[in-house]
Amino acid sequence: MPIITLTTDFGIKDHFVSAVKGAIYTELPEATIVDISHEISPFHITEAAYIIQNAYKSFPKGSIHIVGIDSELNPENKHIAVLLDDHYFICANNGLISLIASEFRPEKIVEINIHDAIGTNFPVLDVFVAVACHIARGGTLEVIGKPTAEIKLIKGITPIVNLGDKQIVGSIIYIDNYGNLITNITRKLFEDIGKGRSFKITARSAVFSKIYERYSDAINFDVEKSKREEDGKKLAVFNSSGYLELAIYKSNPRTVGGASSLFGLYFRDTVSITFE
Amino acid sequence: MPIITLTTDFGIKDHFVSAVKGAIYTELPEATIVDISHEISPFHITEAAYIIQNAYKSFPKGSIHIVGIDSELNPENKHIAVLLDDHYFICANNGLISLIASEFRPEKIVEINIHDAIGTNFPVLDVFVAVACHIARGGTLEVIGKPTAEIKLIKGITPIVNLGDKQIVGSIIYIDNYGNLITNITRKLFEDIGKGRSFKITARSAVFSKIYERYSDAINFDVEKSKREEDGKKLAVFNSSGYLELAIYKSNPRTVGGASSLFGLYFRDTVSITFE
Amino acid sequence: MPIITLTTDFGIKDHFVSAVKGAIYTELPEATIVDISHEISPFHITEAAYIIQNAYKSFPKGSIHIVGIDSELNPENKHIAVLLDDHYFICANNGLISLIASEFRPEKIVEINIHDAIGTNFPVLDVFVAVACHIARGGTLEVIGKPTAEIKLIKGITPIVNLGDKQIVGSIIYIDNYGNLITNITRKLFEDIGKGRSFKITARSAVFSKIYERYSDAINFDVEKSKREEDGKKLAVFNSSGYLELAIYKSNPRTVGGASSLFGLYFRDTVSITFE
Repeated sequence: MPIITLTTDFGIKDHFVSAVKGAIYTELPEATIVDISHEISPFHITEAAYIIQNAYKSFPKGSIHIVGIDSELNPENKHIAVLLDDHYFICANNGLISLIASEFRPEKIVEINIHDAIGTNFPVLDVFVAVACHIARGGTLEVIGKPTAEIKLIKGITPIVNLGDKQIVGSIIYIDNYGNLITNITRKLFEDIGKGRSFKITARSAVFSKIYERYSDAINFDVEKSKREEDGKKLAVFNSSGYLELAIYKSNPRTVGGASSLFGLYFRDTVSITFE
Repeated sequence: MPIITLTTDFGIKDHFVSAVKGAIYTELPEATIVDISHEISPFHITEAAYIIQNAYKSFPKGSIHIVGIDSELNPENKHIAVLLDDHYFICANNGLISLIASEFRPEKIVEINIHDAIGTNFPVLDVFVAVACHIARGGTLEVIGKPTAEIKLIKGITPIVNLGDKQIVGSIIYIDNYGNLITNITRKLFEDIGKGRSFKITARSAVFSKIYERYSDAINFDVEKSKREEDGKKLAVFNSSGYLELAIYKSNPRTVGGASSLFGLYFRDTVSITFE
Repeated sequence: MPIITLTTDFGIKDHFVSAVKGAIYTELPEATIVDISHEISPFHITEAAYIIQNAYKSFPKGSIHIVGIDSELNPENKHIAVLLDDHYFICANNGLISLIASEFRPEKIVEINIHDAIGTNFPVLDVFVAVACHIARGGTLEVIGKPTAEIKLIKGITPIVNLGDKQIVGSIIYIDNYGNLITNITRKLFEDIGKGRSFKITARSAVFSKIYERYSDAINFDVEKSKREEDGKKLAVFNSSGYLELAIYKSNPRTVGGASSLFGLYFRDTVSITFE
């Protein structure tokens, strides 16, 4: 039976997440349910997209991803089920899929039409669970919705290349648990534009001229531990998701601070790369 | 095999929750364990009751709910196992069950007597797990306790109706992940007393004259998005649990604030409805 | 199939934890995965050791524990798999095992050598999952690593006994969800040195002359509830892990404060016991 994952902005204190799990187990006692995240900032679709995009690919093909972010049904927010990259996504048509699907074309999209006359204000429980269980039992999308091609587009913040390929101007799209700053500049874009040239990354007052493969690569292990710069060292790295990340080596944002607080950089702030 | 759920004030950093899960899996390798919440405010029985009450009904009949809130055994705090609404609850007799059981009469209550002579200061691990596994294997309550009828009563904060049904005075019983304010005024009470009359809800300086079915119903989708009031709009709604809730449309308590911070209303504060 | 547990400093918002779970389920659809904690302070090895030490013993023998704390491979941080007390641990050789293994001698240690040429900056996903699944399928450690005896030692903060057994000087090693202060003084050490003598525990300005078995033992239930000291009462107790703990009865660190904030005591601060 396929895995069902949950991504929401419900938080982990309230009853919402467990109510959803209880409802799934009631329909499918053998279900495997995995939490992706319930700590999405409320109604933050781009944040949800970043997290789901990096998580779903580790799951088996055929997995079913319920996304409960801004999912109340209204005239501008229909419910959809989407087959994309061999994974199923059940969510509101609020732009999320357009962000996840930037690399892929959805194979199938249906607008869910199993709703009864009166609406609900807990659609994840009352609608998405039924759709997920239907798919998990091998049901087709056509049974629970009518095919549609209309995906609401959100223009994600994409990097700008300017001055005859001399510069990439990107921005911070996510700050992780270590306070590290993830930009929207991918390794692919960097390599396509940079073509091996020297470069300088500027983010407010922080400057970098090298991008490491691993955090540890910034440390010179030939120097004795007590004599080398290590904790608190700033570095740029391509993270495991393929994005340029500005980091502090072994940072702890709750004590000494992380890259975000130390560089004074936050969501949507600018990071630019200038090539020679 | 029935599901075992966990509701505690242990938090998710310490080893407590996982130690309990390890012990359950040791006894029952095929167990399905679901977290309801581990973020209950320490020793906050009414908060736990609100969360469990809204979560347990989504689980299959026969589910076993371990509640680790203020559960150390002492002369005033016995351990009980309760069959209520076809669900099992294992907890201390600290008033929690009286709050959950306000609608239902427990079918069976036993005072757990499997304790050895010396007490433990981790009763969820050392006592409740054994009881839960016993029930999960099909064991009866009588084997692990002696029948009792004594349920400790906590008078939950209940709304007051006064002035010849002209007014309901309720209070805030919970603040959710969005900062929304949940009152103890149910839809049923509102309808029984109000009988369709016009009304005014007053909560400190916030006033409402309408209760919506869904958050989105407060938005006028006929007006173009850029021209209408939306984010930050205040509204009253009957939430998915059937309680009157005072909310801010698409609020984020961590950034712009939620209903609680914006209205200046907190746990136990008063909300009143006056009918014409 | 053995249980696989996860202990990391990834936090629960980012995609890291769910990516790891997805990868495990992809290899082993029938896996049972249990979170020990993802809220370890970033790179805090002693904190991780305290939590794992107290959690793993509740799990069945043969369980596999993935520890993702400071686990990037570098010349000073090799990856190891260890059989210890009939449990498997997969982690970096960063001292963690020496802290967990203080009571036990590891039965087997291998340095993992399944890495391909280029490193990864997400070794839990790219290396530890493969090792865990290999072990879960019944594979031997020798297949994924070469035997080694070199465990990096961290001298945990251990208590000092001085003045002819007149004094134990310990320190705070952990602060739990209730704000209670866990010291590194075990019941065994206390009893071996104290031999039943009277004593005085001093921690900054807080003084204790008794150690309780349970929190409730500090309360005199013969006195009527309204007349007795209870909430906020300070006490020393041997906690469920066998360590001396300084606590506040029914504390809530988020509201009235816990032992840590009320006593002004934090990680590494000194607690001493003087015997008569």
